Amino acid sequence: MSKGIISKDEDYSQWFNELVIKADMAEYSPVRGCMIIKPYGYSIWEKMQSVLDKMFKDTGHSNAYFPLLIPKSFFSKEASHVEGFAKECAVVTHYRLKNDEDGQIIVDSEAKLEEELIIRPTSETIIWNTYKGWIQSYRDLPILVNQWANVMRWEMRTRMFLRTSEFLWQEGHTAHATAEEAIAETEQMLDVYADFAENWLALPVVKGRKTPNERFAGALDTYCIEALMQDGKALQAGTSHFLGQNFAKAFDVKFANKEGKLDYVWATSWGVSTRLIGALIMAHSDDAGLVLPPKLAPIQVVIVPIYKHDEELQNISTYVKGLTAELKAKGISVKFDDRDTQRPGFKFAEYELKGVPLRVAIGSRDMQNGTVELARRDTKTKETVNQEGLANHIEQLLEDIQANIYKKAFDFRAENITKVDSYDEFKRLLDEKPGFISAHWDGTPETEQKIKDETKATIRCIPLNNEQEEGVCILTGKPSSQRVLFARAY
Amino acid sequence: MSKGIISKDEDYSQWFNELVIKADMAEYSPVRGCMIIKPYGYSIWEKMQSVLDKMFKDTGHSNAYFPLLIPKSFFSKEASHVEGFAKECAVVTHYRLKNDEDGQIIVDSEAKLEEELIIRPTSETIIWNTYKGWIQSYRDLPILVNQWANVMRWEMRTRMFLRTSEFLWQEGHTAHATAEEAIAETEQMLDVYADFAENWLALPVVKGRKTPNERFAGALDTYCIEALMQDGKALQAGTSHFLGQNFAKAFDVKFANKEGKLDYVWATSWGVSTRLIGALIMAHSDDAGLVLPPKLAPIQVVIVPIYKHDEELQNISTYVKGLTAELKAKGISVKFDDRDTQRPGFKFAEYELKGVPLRVAIGSRDMQNGTVELARRDTKTKETVNQEGLANHIEQLLEDIQANIYKKAFDFRAENITKVDSYDEFKRLLDEKPGFISAHWDGTPETEQKIKDETKATIRCIPLNNEQEEGVCILTGKPSSQRVLFARAY
Repeated sequence: MSKGIISKDEDYSQWFNELVIKADMAEYSPVRGCMIIKPYGYSIWEKMQSVLDKMFKDTGHSNAYFPLLIPKSFFSKEASHVEGFAKECAVVTHYRLKNDEDGQIIVDSEAKLEEELIIRPTSETIIWNTYKGWIQSYRDLPILVNQWANVMRWEMRTRMFLRTSEFLWQEGHTAHATAEEAIAETEQMLDVYADFAENWLALPVVKGRKTPNERFAGALDTYCIEALMQDGKALQAGTSHFLGQNFAKAFDVKFANKEGKLDYVWATSWGVSTRLIGALIMAHSDDAGLVLPPKLAPIQVVIVPIYKHDEELQNISTYVKGLTAELKAKGISVKFDDRDTQRPGFKFAEYELKGVPLRVAIGSRDMQNGTVELARRDTKTKETVNQEGLANHIEQLLEDIQANIYKKAFDFRAENITKVDSYDEFKRLLDEKPGFISAHWDGTPETEQKIKDETKATIRCIPLNNEQEEGVCILTGKPSSQRVLFARAY
Repeated sequence: MSKGIISKDEDYSQWFNELVIKADMAEYSPVRGCMIIKPYGYSIWEKMQSVLDKMFKDTGHSNAYFPLLIPKSFFSKEASHVEGFAKECAVVTHYRLKNDEDGQIIVDSEAKLEEELIIRPTSETIIWNTYKGWIQSYRDLPILVNQWANVMRWEMRTRMFLRTSEFLWQEGHTAHATAEEAIAETEQMLDVYADFAENWLALPVVKGRKTPNERFAGALDTYCIEALMQDGKALQAGTSHFLGQNFAKAFDVKFANKEGKLDYVWATSWGVSTRLIGALIMAHSDDAGLVLPPKLAPIQVVIVPIYKHDEELQNISTYVKGLTAELKAKGISVKFDDRDTQRPGFKFAEYELKGVPLRVAIGSRDMQNGTVELARRDTKTKETVNQEGLANHIEQLLEDIQANIYKKAFDFRAENITKVDSYDEFKRLLDEKPGFISAHWDGTPETEQKIKDETKATIRCIPLNNEQEEGVCILTGKPSSQRVLFARAY
């Protein structure tokens, strides 16, 4: 295993790419902008899926599956949606290949589709076209459905996990009898996402609303969670949209309410994606490799035996067998790496690179002393501890590690949210000490756009429960009643 | 809920379609040959996934994810594979839409791909192209990877679950240092599938090998499990392929063995799909609706209160709360349907249609007598039993139901496997009493094809551990050393 990744202070972007590849998370594929998620990376996604899926079910949702391909005309039905999604997309035009005269495989021009099909960039249109058949009366509401799926957006600039043409995600699509209920759902799912980010990814997030400029195409209101990466750039980690009656109107989905009156149905949609894996890597890792919070680490504890002779290994293995059983009974995932093809030092470096939260090393002297050596990935500290009560100690340590990783990210963010009251200071900070900037804004899309054009910073969100405060816009000097959160973002 | 599905004896095919729709399993979508899997149907798929995924992991496999789109040229690299898969497929030719002069959304002819991309019909090509980068030496082997994914085959005649253009499946793709190891893997996964079919789907299957005519495109050997449906047609429920070195040669994947000599890698692939849901429905259900084996039923027990006054319901609910807790503690999924918008009779019909294995009805007299009424879906029998010890009784009953559903299917198959020694008898049986026909065949593709052309029956498999027996081919009279299994099939 060749290590040597570039330092993140030297080139953060390159550091990220090297880390993704050398830690066996993912690699690029021969298809432009599409990646291959390798088993180690995918096992993190599986953990995320399993936790989120339970959260969705605990809040009353069921999973379903809708078609990958969407007729082109569906996108035209919701005006702002088509602008946002249907432009850069993979278009299926034919359904057959054939051999040409030279035996080459070519597209059969006679097998042309009557209407082109789009690989879903998101599924609102096909789902609302379906809901029309499911909803007649208020008794059919709410519909609380989620889908785990692949989607495709033909991105021009891609980056593994953060922005790829194809990505994996979940998309919730709910239908409600009232606006209030739909808004409550939108907010509930934002809370679910924030809970997941903070308690599982160990990633502190700001909950907020997007400005109209940054809203989902077709939404009346977009809620988001925003996180801060170690280079001071923001990353949108999840969104939850209140869609109003836009899609119901576009697909003519009405219901009879209790009074028998027809009305359009209210909608939400919400999603998180494999982008979260990118966030996880960027938020916590260091120059030695990944730092994974224990709750999402595929391997939580690795045990490395240190021995010269086979009988030493045998002795160690017997002990490890018991320890492993104890840890597994506590729901802790353990790997005992007794490969004889690699030296302990090589293994140490490998698990450091892969972000295994806790390493246990055991040699013959340890066996004599009744001790083991523990090494934490997050703090890079070692301690020698007694074998007695070790499983409990490890369980506690994993909790400490989870908490410490969160605290580190929390403190980093606290140090990198700055209140700014002048545009010069704003621009200076973005270059010198990037992070979240809390500043006054006059509330107009024009000002927002101008700031974006001049600084590449966008309004990440208007935080929920934002403090009201008199002030003036940093750009125009016009009055403002609250600060919003700016940053350069992924 | 309108019931009234056609009798399966009257029109089996129509019965299946009506059942799928009325039991809320799935529906057709506006995209040709693609279906929408509704929450109730999808929850069965989720159960299947969870059981299979554990089986795969217990046998050492990990999940990964490869791109949806495959460059057209990849299919040309393995000659027989392209014939089998790349012809009827969805072809992506463009990556952008635009507005024309009238504001209509059209394909942007300037955004044409240099090389067309195919939506994966199966992933051998993209995966072996990737494995090339993963494998240098015998130390990198075996690779034991599985993928849960959607795939697309542009089918001309479709039927929900059984044959749809897009379907969900898992595809295992493994790489090995020796042929023996790859064959052992192929056989192991066949055993996993057979175990799953028999012990979870309650579906007896014949394990066997396909004839060369029926092999997977690119395989040296295709193993399969074959099941019998209630109309006497066979259904291939899973396949496991020994691919030899075909894909390694096509994608130039070599490894250095322990002696340092370069050799091509040996491959397997294996898969089951949402087709299994079709098999589940077709194998066990009846004119009243679905019959689901308890181990895969989304709801195993439904409890329906029978009451006139609210205080009766309150009384019943208190009891049900305790019962539900007891059942859940045993891992049994329970639904208490206390809707006041529907009568008990309506509910009974609904859960019968949806195949809930066990129904518990409780009225006020039951509460006085300390009893409940149990109704089994599989046998349509009712019994009144004591509330005392009910949870244990229900647990036992669910096991009995699982076993009984299997036994019924097993007995049906036993009655419908017939040894036949003349071609006239063969043809007569196919029309009069379809099922598996065990007959001698001369071993040539020509004879197999002629029988298929004349009778629509195919060789489903050459059963594993087949008895050797001297005989003569039913069509040609040429000598044969074993019987093979014929049937008309889905």
